[in-house]
Amino acid sequence: MNFDGRDIVSIKDFSKAELERIMSVSDLMEPLSREGSDILKGKIMATLFFEPSTRTRISFESAMLRLGGNYIGFAEPKLTSVEKGENLVDTVRVVENYANLIILRHPLEGAARLASEYVNIPIINAGSGAEEHPTQALLDLYTIKREMGKIDRLTIALIGDLRYGRTVHSLAYALSLFDVKLYLISPDLLKMRKEVLEEINGKIEVFQETDLKKVLPKLDVIYMTRIQKERFPDLKDYELVKGSYRLSRDDLKFVKRKTIVMHPLPRVDEITFDVDDTHHARYFKQAFYGLLVRMSLLSLILGGIK
Amino acid sequence: MNFDGRDIVSIKDFSKAELERIMSVSDLMEPLSREGSDILKGKIMATLFFEPSTRTRISFESAMLRLGGNYIGFAEPKLTSVEKGENLVDTVRVVENYANLIILRHPLEGAARLASEYVNIPIINAGSGAEEHPTQALLDLYTIKREMGKIDRLTIALIGDLRYGRTVHSLAYALSLFDVKLYLISPDLLKMRKEVLEEINGKIEVFQETDLKKVLPKLDVIYMTRIQKERFPDLKDYELVKGSYRLSRDDLKFVKRKTIVMHPLPRVDEITFDVDDTHHARYFKQAFYGLLVRMSLLSLILGGIK
Amino acid sequence: MNFDGRDIVSIKDFSKAELERIMSVSDLMEPLSREGSDILKGKIMATLFFEPSTRTRISFESAMLRLGGNYIGFAEPKLTSVEKGENLVDTVRVVENYANLIILRHPLEGAARLASEYVNIPIINAGSGAEEHPTQALLDLYTIKREMGKIDRLTIALIGDLRYGRTVHSLAYALSLFDVKLYLISPDLLKMRKEVLEEINGKIEVFQETDLKKVLPKLDVIYMTRIQKERFPDLKDYELVKGSYRLSRDDLKFVKRKTIVMHPLPRVDEITFDVDDTHHARYFKQAFYGLLVRMSLLSLILGGIK
Repeated sequence: MNFDGRDIVSIKDFSKAELERIMSVSDLMEPLSREGSDILKGKIMATLFFEPSTRTRISFESAMLRLGGNYIGFAEPKLTSVEKGENLVDTVRVVENYANLIILRHPLEGAARLASEYVNIPIINAGSGAEEHPTQALLDLYTIKREMGKIDRLTIALIGDLRYGRTVHSLAYALSLFDVKLYLISPDLLKMRKEVLEEINGKIEVFQETDLKKVLPKLDVIYMTRIQKERFPDLKDYELVKGSYRLSRDDLKFVKRKTIVMHPLPRVDEITFDVDDTHHARYFKQAFYGLLVRMSLLSLILGGIK
Repeated sequence: MNFDGRDIVSIKDFSKAELERIMSVSDLMEPLSREGSDILKGKIMATLFFEPSTRTRISFESAMLRLGGNYIGFAEPKLTSVEKGENLVDTVRVVENYANLIILRHPLEGAARLASEYVNIPIINAGSGAEEHPTQALLDLYTIKREMGKIDRLTIALIGDLRYGRTVHSLAYALSLFDVKLYLISPDLLKMRKEVLEEINGKIEVFQETDLKKVLPKLDVIYMTRIQKERFPDLKDYELVKGSYRLSRDDLKFVKRKTIVMHPLPRVDEITFDVDDTHHARYFKQAFYGLLVRMSLLSLILGGIK
Repeated sequence: MNFDGRDIVSIKDFSKAELERIMSVSDLMEPLSREGSDILKGKIMATLFFEPSTRTRISFESAMLRLGGNYIGFAEPKLTSVEKGENLVDTVRVVENYANLIILRHPLEGAARLASEYVNIPIINAGSGAEEHPTQALLDLYTIKREMGKIDRLTIALIGDLRYGRTVHSLAYALSLFDVKLYLISPDLLKMRKEVLEEINGKIEVFQETDLKKVLPKLDVIYMTRIQKERFPDLKDYELVKGSYRLSRDDLKFVKRKTIVMHPLPRVDEITFDVDDTHHARYFKQAFYGLLVRMSLLSLILGGIK
């Protein structure tokens, strides 16, 4: 198992042992996240965000700084040479001269894979199209492990937009390597994509549902997601489903005492604010675990941790 | 008097002794602003600017670097998750996992106070709504002290948009803790807000005027401000007052030899360029004092200086 | 020959000996570009980009980090105080308080010269108007020297938009200090500016051509440039010349074995992708040499290298 110089394009590239290795190195990162370190002193990360994502970008940049490295980059497609017609491959082939690794977010599916084929420095996919977002899946997995003490033998529900939300695709793949029961809860229009279902069916028990309230009492992990208006070809369809999968404090009366509520954030209104100070809420803690997981990956890939 | 971990939301939160402490630590920062230091090595500042302000953001970032720390952040509301509907509290609760302190600028009044109630790391208000901008007031105060040798017994005029300009609100509060005479000079439409007047009246002598030229000979400190078009509900009102409070080199014939001219910048045309190379001009030096004051605050809050 | 604290405004400010000094220090930078260094520890660079240029900005920022310094800045004119009406001189006079040097890119000709007259810290021109881009010329020169082993006695062609492209103006000046044959190949509408021709004619042999294919076999260096749509007052003129100077793999059958192809990037379609993996292509390597040249300049100007 060697992470040195490796690309992180898809969660599917990892074996279960590798996922566990990333998580155990994440544990080691917790003290460094407070005190800082010099593990990656002199290393430069390029964050190339062709699509906005404050949390993800800032999380990577903080991880790099906590490890003693630094960063360059852009988060502003409209003001880069991209707008003058430069293509993605040219951009990453230029940037590979200026950095030790690239964090790439791009609106097109397959962008990170394509980039990784052309450059000699490692690429981490921070989201490409509606497809995959592997570091989000890793941090989700790590949050479950840290907060529940284990992943195996849990009943987990992914709720909301399972068709267009890339977060849930990567997470479903990751969970299929463990011994979990998975509920996929969405309106018919937003059902989980067939190719994801084919990949995970048979490995784990999967149940597709439309009614969130009915299954609440069975769940150990409630993973809510945002219904992204911009993914809908027709706005009328959005209005139909908007708000139909909303979790409030009242709903939590029906869950187990140890059940946790997660969300990749940002939320719109799918979790009401009165949930925030219940002992079930974990979505802000998730952001902290995201820092640890990204520190873990940077350390493993750039050779700081063997 | 303890600054460790403290929020800086309003200038009104400070006692006179605390203001003087911040200013005396600012003196200590001057050599470090040239040579650099490692006082805040390993610390991360997040600059969250939901509203543009190049000078303020860059000044904080430079201060942090001069102290050996580093920064993450955004200055681009349209490209962040904010545009997807994430609320301010969610944003700062995520970011507190990635940084040791947050510098927040936001268009809504009360934003910094609200944020400080939800997060466990210190927040510095870098401007919220038309309300307050405490670090600007601190640097203005410090500029007066450094350039005049004292604050007490001076006659100071705040000129221009006293209704919508947040800079002058914070500065008026700060000055009310000292023994000054304060002239508030504005068109009727842009008079100082009643709540500010109520706070400072009685503490210091306050004179409201509409005619700048008349009072010029009395002044030790001339504090000009920009009339911000974007604050006017009706553009016709803006056209009426635009340019009516403009200071030129000719006007300076009527001031004392030691009188200084200040401006929070950016200016439009309220100080003509021929003032820049007179010995009265201090608005660029103000920017340097801003660096020292911000270094002082960061050192005090993040524990570098006890 | 003293670079300490010097402004880099125009390539014309350099003697041939100075250009050679910059290139020989660039050689020294190659190991530091991999291992990093502390040469500029504690120094701050401000990148003020009033016009987009990802590659140039990132290249400078990487150079500064590799030397142990750090950076502040903006790349977003619309969100800075510029949009509130602040003028360039005010901006740089404020920023000089926060940094040890300024990298300036601005849409107006003469902007860097103007700025350098007002501030006491060094300014490096990273492009001003359609006029000059001296660090691009330096890296182009350095690329030729590194890849051909020499500059003298080469036959070099600048191809494409020679009227509006600032890159080729600076490069033509630089080459005129060496013993080269220079082909200027463009449509009539986009011929090299008269003032550049006057400067270089007599110093070196210059040939103006419209037909690229005809001269290909004579060339040692093929320097392609993009035809920038935004420089054309009339879009019809753009459509006429667009694509008329395109280099493909087939064209390379007619060049010498050692001929190199350069491009300042970004390209649109003036070099087809099938050229990228020929042994003639050097445009990505150029980006790496740009890093070395910028490290060299930063070291020389900020006193790290005597």
